[in-house]
Amino acid sequence: MTHSRTVELEGHIIDSGTMQRCFGAVMDLGGSFDVERFDVGKHETEESYCRLTVSADDPETLRGILHELHQNGAVLEDPSDVELVAAPADKVVPPNFYSTTNHPTEVLYDGEWIGVERIEMDCALVVEPEPAADAGEGDRADASDPGGSPRAYTKTLNAIEEGDLVATDQSGIRVKPPERPRSGGGAFGFMQGGVSAERPSESTIREVAAELRAVKADGGNVMVVAGPAVIHSGAGDALADLVAGGYVDALSAGNGFATHDLERSIYGTSLGMNVETLEHPRKGHKHHIWTISEIIRAGGIEAAVEDGVVTEGVMYECVEHGVDTVLAGSIRDDGPLPDTITDAVEAQDAIREQAHDADIVIMLATLLHSVAVGNCLPSTTKTVCVDINPATVTQLLDRGSAQAIGMVTDIGTFVPTLAELVLEDGDAETAVADE
Amino acid sequence: MTHSRTVELEGHIIDSGTMQRCFGAVMDLGGSFDVERFDVGKHETEESYCRLTVSADDPETLRGILHELHQNGAVLEDPSDVELVAAPADKVVPPNFYSTTNHPTEVLYDGEWIGVERIEMDCALVVEPEPAADAGEGDRADASDPGGSPRAYTKTLNAIEEGDLVATDQSGIRVKPPERPRSGGGAFGFMQGGVSAERPSESTIREVAAELRAVKADGGNVMVVAGPAVIHSGAGDALADLVAGGYVDALSAGNGFATHDLERSIYGTSLGMNVETLEHPRKGHKHHIWTISEIIRAGGIEAAVEDGVVTEGVMYECVEHGVDTVLAGSIRDDGPLPDTITDAVEAQDAIREQAHDADIVIMLATLLHSVAVGNCLPSTTKTVCVDINPATVTQLLDRGSAQAIGMVTDIGTFVPTLAELVLEDGDAETAVADE
Amino acid sequence: MTHSRTVELEGHIIDSGTMQRCFGAVMDLGGSFDVERFDVGKHETEESYCRLTVSADDPETLRGILHELHQNGAVLEDPSDVELVAAPADKVVPPNFYSTTNHPTEVLYDGEWIGVERIEMDCALVVEPEPAADAGEGDRADASDPGGSPRAYTKTLNAIEEGDLVATDQSGIRVKPPERPRSGGGAFGFMQGGVSAERPSESTIREVAAELRAVKADGGNVMVVAGPAVIHSGAGDALADLVAGGYVDALSAGNGFATHDLERSIYGTSLGMNVETLEHPRKGHKHHIWTISEIIRAGGIEAAVEDGVVTEGVMYECVEHGVDTVLAGSIRDDGPLPDTITDAVEAQDAIREQAHDADIVIMLATLLHSVAVGNCLPSTTKTVCVDINPATVTQLLDRGSAQAIGMVTDIGTFVPTLAELVLEDGDAETAVADE
Amino acid sequence: MTHSRTVELEGHIIDSGTMQRCFGAVMDLGGSFDVERFDVGKHETEESYCRLTVSADDPETLRGILHELHQNGAVLEDPSDVELVAAPADKVVPPNFYSTTNHPTEVLYDGEWIGVERIEMDCALVVEPEPAADAGEGDRADASDPGGSPRAYTKTLNAIEEGDLVATDQSGIRVKPPERPRSGGGAFGFMQGGVSAERPSESTIREVAAELRAVKADGGNVMVVAGPAVIHSGAGDALADLVAGGYVDALSAGNGFATHDLERSIYGTSLGMNVETLEHPRKGHKHHIWTISEIIRAGGIEAAVEDGVVTEGVMYECVEHGVDTVLAGSIRDDGPLPDTITDAVEAQDAIREQAHDADIVIMLATLLHSVAVGNCLPSTTKTVCVDINPATVTQLLDRGSAQAIGMVTDIGTFVPTLAELVLEDGDAETAVADE
Repeated sequence: MTHSRTVELEGHIIDSGTMQRCFGAVMDLGGSFDVERFDVGKHETEESYCRLTVSADDPETLRGILHELHQNGAVLEDPSDVELVAAPADKVVPPNFYSTTNHPTEVLYDGEWIGVERIEMDCALVVEPEPAADAGEGDRADASDPGGSPRAYTKTLNAIEEGDLVATDQSGIRVKPPERPRSGGGAFGFMQGGVSAERPSESTIREVAAELRAVKADGGNVMVVAGPAVIHSGAGDALADLVAGGYVDALSAGNGFATHDLERSIYGTSLGMNVETLEHPRKGHKHHIWTISEIIRAGGIEAAVEDGVVTEGVMYECVEHGVDTVLAGSIRDDGPLPDTITDAVEAQDAIREQAHDADIVIMLATLLHSVAVGNCLPSTTKTVCVDINPATVTQLLDRGSAQAIGMVTDIGTFVPTLAELVLEDGDAETAVADE
Repeated sequence: MTHSRTVELEGHIIDSGTMQRCFGAVMDLGGSFDVERFDVGKHETEESYCRLTVSADDPETLRGILHELHQNGAVLEDPSDVELVAAPADKVVPPNFYSTTNHPTEVLYDGEWIGVERIEMDCALVVEPEPAADAGEGDRADASDPGGSPRAYTKTLNAIEEGDLVATDQSGIRVKPPERPRSGGGAFGFMQGGVSAERPSESTIREVAAELRAVKADGGNVMVVAGPAVIHSGAGDALADLVAGGYVDALSAGNGFATHDLERSIYGTSLGMNVETLEHPRKGHKHHIWTISEIIRAGGIEAAVEDGVVTEGVMYECVEHGVDTVLAGSIRDDGPLPDTITDAVEAQDAIREQAHDADIVIMLATLLHSVAVGNCLPSTTKTVCVDINPATVTQLLDRGSAQAIGMVTDIGTFVPTLAELVLEDGDAETAVADE
Repeated sequence: MTHSRTVELEGHIIDSGTMQRCFGAVMDLGGSFDVERFDVGKHETEESYCRLTVSADDPETLRGILHELHQNGAVLEDPSDVELVAAPADKVVPPNFYSTTNHPTEVLYDGEWIGVERIEMDCALVVEPEPAADAGEGDRADASDPGGSPRAYTKTLNAIEEGDLVATDQSGIRVKPPERPRSGGGAFGFMQGGVSAERPSESTIREVAAELRAVKADGGNVMVVAGPAVIHSGAGDALADLVAGGYVDALSAGNGFATHDLERSIYGTSLGMNVETLEHPRKGHKHHIWTISEIIRAGGIEAAVEDGVVTEGVMYECVEHGVDTVLAGSIRDDGPLPDTITDAVEAQDAIREQAHDADIVIMLATLLHSVAVGNCLPSTTKTVCVDINPATVTQLLDRGSAQAIGMVTDIGTFVPTLAELVLEDGDAETAVADE
Repeated sequence: MTHSRTVELEGHIIDSGTMQRCFGAVMDLGGSFDVERFDVGKHETEESYCRLTVSADDPETLRGILHELHQNGAVLEDPSDVELVAAPADKVVPPNFYSTTNHPTEVLYDGEWIGVERIEMDCALVVEPEPAADAGEGDRADASDPGGSPRAYTKTLNAIEEGDLVATDQSGIRVKPPERPRSGGGAFGFMQGGVSAERPSESTIREVAAELRAVKADGGNVMVVAGPAVIHSGAGDALADLVAGGYVDALSAGNGFATHDLERSIYGTSLGMNVETLEHPRKGHKHHIWTISEIIRAGGIEAAVEDGVVTEGVMYECVEHGVDTVLAGSIRDDGPLPDTITDAVEAQDAIREQAHDADIVIMLATLLHSVAVGNCLPSTTKTVCVDINPATVTQLLDRGSAQAIGMVTDIGTFVPTLAELVLEDGDAETAVADE
């Protein structure tokens, strides 16, 4: 059985993003809609009007949807008066009280829309049918108001007094979200709630793990872009496990990443620190530059693996499992390793080949390489971007991708958690071995 | 004389934000539009269609608008074939070449729309009428393509060869920006270019200065919310000048801000450092706590000004000019000063009074106090938020304000520059003295 | 059996931090030292001299120590000539080659100390006994050098040519780290490698877990300071487990933390989002403010637990296990909850009692409350500070604590990992139940 | 006339950094010292002892120095009893009261050192000669203390009661800063106040300007390393002025910086935005990629200047004034420009030449290029590093430079302010024209 209600919106509802948010809310919350009527303003100064019926399978879902539409300015067709309930005690609001937004608001009282004074978010909404003679002195109501006519104003929970008539539910209340100014406002911008990178960490990693397994189950191609912090933060073993498990088809990184990883295999340290025991926490540049000289001596990473110089780690697993690996050079490199492509244009071409083959790209703690890969990606490729710096995540997601996850989190705990979730069924390698 | 063109859009153009961006682009770029037809999909799965005519006063403006609409998927009514020009030399594209987006793209060639291969942003678009026998090997075209039929693909500028047929202008080309998925995509979000805080600093400060003068010229009310970094970064004198010039009606700050400022007046230092000479850059906690004890001894800031203990600075000017000042306490305060309201609920009520009177609010380098003020502000109040931490600016602007400016900049240079621009006409005090 | 070597240092070795770093290196790396002689410069312009013998149980440890001392300017007593080995091929350095620092350096060649030209870090050091006639043109050596006398200069690995005489080991080489200027250098500061917050995440969390168990095993007192991000990032269950397991004696937090946690217990969401399923990722301010009203209705958190309104979460476990809880108010609070101490001075006093009883303090993702607690802590209390913002960690550790760990990491993965490690033995509750 | 006092220190005063800080304090504050005696602990477990006489030209300077030494644990030779003064009223401390540190502290009372209870920073220190019978209940003193013997404890200013005997000055008080643990403490580190990047902005820029003029007056070589944000933030004109004024000898940047600058000259925009009028704030990628194609067409930047295609900006002034310019490529470049060195090793060599010639290096808003330059710099070269991201500044200064300034500030206001200060005398060009 379906539950439905009809609502109306009017104003500059297209260019202010109102319609986008309303349609999105219905779909996000699991409902559906029918547009009864949509009159689009012909010129930029004419307002538009929309009447639509929203439906859901149960009343709770419908209530959630109507709440969102209400906050975006939708009003129920044929609205009834606001429902008022007296506060049972000081500071105690009635159950199901209406909590305000920060937008201009009106209440339908006695058949008339009256404006709500002192608008502020997260307050109760109190209606005063006949203001007492001393109203407006020392309390929240405006002193300039003449007696006699009903008034509505916000009150913080804290200021509620026993007997205050508090609005409940949201019928008989309409909000007016600000509209985009008709003419450009100079430096002042019209702000729409931006993309917030804040998410519950473990639940989000679980979603990434599920996606990774799904892509591989479909025979898809996984590309990993990794920065040196992956190794230095102690996440190298976990990434190596993902490679060994068959979950990485292409690795795009730099000279620093590879050198850190190889140093761990040869000397057990990363920039001189043992990342398990935390011993010798001084800068052992010696190991770093010595690692480079060892690989040069061997003639390259693959040769070093064959000679038994390198026996574990991400690069080792990439060689063993034939992962398509591109190491792109940069002017801050030491060495570089013989495998590093030092010419930027050549490196871009190699990255481009990887990017166009990828079905999902996981970007781990590197701005430089992630931007280089992002420059070559169609907007339809799934992207996961993980970095501890919010600015990096924002910059990488700001490309109009259709499906993207940004996480501001610690690479040193993200990769091990991801590897555990992806590989946990034990037979992960079997599962993806035949592709 | 008006220049016009008619374009068409179709797809899920409302909930994907396409219409919002297109209408916005026309208005931002100084044009106007007439909606010829708008068929809105009745259900969430039905596509919509829009035909609109855009007009501008000059062909250059019209071209700019059409470029934006094109990038959002609009196609000229009755499109003609793509215009191809042969590259005059290796790596040299013809003038006015078409630079690709990262969205799926098609070109109209010989009357047929053909898909562009290897989509990637900022490339040239090459059409190959009859692929050579060896095409697809080692170059950017897909190897799987059969010979005979015309093909289109992207090429980086770097890879252009003499004679390549390169698309110019944008006629005969259409892009397909990704649409919002019909069903919620779990953790994967639909990314729309977010609010970028990056702006040219001096030009933006000039706009803020102009707005501040305009508000005062209209007899409006300016509220400043300030953190201790304003003083410690050396910007205290400039803020004091703005107060003395009559440009601040209300100051909302904390115990730390006031103490830093008073320390400068009494001891010439801020946290023990002389902010002009940079001398004694060691932590002189002594001055900080001694300042608090001096003010307590005097009985409060106003008394300390009257007694001649405090003779300059922001707090001094606020006392002298009768600025409505609220100092709200916090658990990290030393002291506190006798003027500080230590009860959070009392402090909120005082801040609320200031916020509701303000016509413009300038938030300077304080997250705590700015959030407290923001909680009380209607979405219609103009807001300027300045902080060196991008996360603070994003958090403060994420409230659906109608007119807001966010600047990620250094408070130590922002306030002096603002004060200079606001006060530069010399007679600033006169200008606002009569209110 | 003990292995020893005697080294010498001279210069302004105390105030430039050289002696501190040298003594520290010996102790950190597991060696010991005997000061043979220490002549301290009597005035600030006189240089000091130190001769000390360092010892270690094995030659490898001794070598590591000598390497650190060398990099800080120590020279072996009775140094021998630099050991030179010819490069076996282009770009290939001999094994055990000397890798340069960025400090001025000299080599002892043929009994004379000669300066190394073109100093740069991470290079090889090449000595040219008799420069060829065309030396200095186009390569790294200075062109101005007269022929005839031996020269030493740096070469990147990349630039090494077969036959180059490359310094190996570190005997016969001395470096001169820059000394603190005798007179204050204005804005230019003397930079000493600062505290780097970068650490391998999982290993460091293991150390924190071990310390937490050790403190409880000794009957010590654990204080946790927590911000709202702990709940919003999905780490609330893990913190509740630590409380239930007896590992938290005092909780210091704010109104926001408690409200987020209580909302999860009552509505299953945090700010309207289900942190496990990620469903309804829209701002459900309603739940937030409704939670506050429910707790006010019940008369407080303890009453709400007793009434069965709150049945799980951090606050629930704190009530059940009698944890000493302080909720300090702030001007950005909604509500507040009846349990929140709204007066800042009263709240400070309550926090002060907790801080003075604590043996270890764990600060989780809150700057405001952590600073308030830090203000009351003696420098001898162990402190762990975790935040995703490096600036917060730096500010909180900048207090001269004797034992402190700072981690720039994601609270949403830190707390679950910590709880798992602390509680993993199953009988954790038993272990600490009798105190 | 000289004022002197003799103080003593003991403990592990070398490896805990105490001596370094004490010697540094004397010199920073303009005093001088004579070491009377220095007994260095022979082994790592033996304590050291130092007696030194500090002198200054005036009593105020001497007092400042003694305050610093006191906070680091120094005690006056032959100390006298603590000076106690009764508080004149509740919450009012006597003038010159002693404000506590957070380190363990003792007071000399009646000839005996007694420990101060409840240590906490920024409090008053109260001595109770004969505790009243009811002491310890409800106030700050420990309840467990037996009556009869004198006690000392901290009290916040707020808690001071009339008549409390409050310590003044610092004689008869000694603090015990925590010492470095003798054995490595695992993950727990010994924290020393790190380098704080917080400085008064304008005063610091003035110091940089003075240094820049001084270097040029000495015929020195100024190297500027610049990122694209310099142009996008609107600071391009100011940097061009510095080049035209003769204050830049070498410019090290990337393809992005040069392209942004050239776009401004050719199209008046940076990434499509006019940085003065803020018009067209949409992404005009077209201008960016068109600029690259124009320069390719001309054959390079110098040719484009000669042909009149480029008529202003940083690159223009560099060509006109023969500035040694290196554009190093990166994998995130568009184009690139023909002038960009795409091979990382070649680019490093070119940067190396610039770095070794520089007397001062100004790093502006680029991590990649600044690290590349920093890798080649001797530790003796003066360095100024400016970025809005504190992590970038910290990373760049963490190289043991002898003279370095780090500023966390906005490049968009830093460069114009610097240029104004450097060039303000009008005849700047003349001043440096003859070198």
